[in-house]
Amino acid sequence: MTDPDGTTPAHPVTGLDDLVHQRVRLGILTIVHEARRAEFGFLRTQLQLTAGNLSQHLGVLESAGLVEVEKGYAGRRGRTWVTLTAAGDVALTEEIVRLKQLIARVETTNGG
Amino acid sequence: MTDPDGTTPAHPVTGLDDLVHQRVRLGILTIVHEARRAEFGFLRTQLQLTAGNLSQHLGVLESAGLVEVEKGYAGRRGRTWVTLTAAGDVALTEEIVRLKQLIARVETTNGG
Repeated sequence: MTDPDGTTPAHPVTGLDDLVHQRVRLGILTIVHEARRAEFGFLRTQLQLTAGNLSQHLGVLESAGLVEVEKGYAGRRGRTWVTLTAAGDVALTEEIVRLKQLIARVETTNGG
Repeated sequence: MTDPDGTTPAHPVTGLDDLVHQRVRLGILTIVHEARRAEFGFLRTQLQLTAGNLSQHLGVLESAGLVEVEKGYAGRRGRTWVTLTAAGDVALTEEIVRLKQLIARVETTNGG
């Protein structure tokens, strides 16, 4: 747990970004990664959220440039579509890399 | 993405518990899992936190029964020690299981 020079390296969680790691936002990003383009109501059902809570997290992700939110119509009904941006894809990939490092550390010490 | 009966199953993130998933608390749990018993100052350095922020998250974990916090001495200096409880070990294991499901989903759709 100590480097040869006596310093302690930072823990993998210090590299996690709360913007992406937060549970609901991680859910939004993984779904739009899977579905390429996801409808607001679909996200709400999948993530079991209120509309207000989903809107709030979408706003955070949109402001950070990780998703694009566009309003349109399906017949006469308004629909909101969410897509992952290139920056969002990079951020999700980075989160997955860090999570794997974290999991590897936990599993190395299992039963140790 | 749809079950044979036409319903959509909930997303893996709905099974994540914010108590454990939150970045700093996940860090605390993984370190005390590794180290069995970690000193407050060590946690603070590893997680790059202020004392106040660390105390706050330790309080949340202690109230939930996931860690035990005990005060003692190293020579004449007061020390605070943190250990993982059995419930904390179960909660961390559960988080790791969910994260792996999430990672598998993201990686299945990579380049798809």
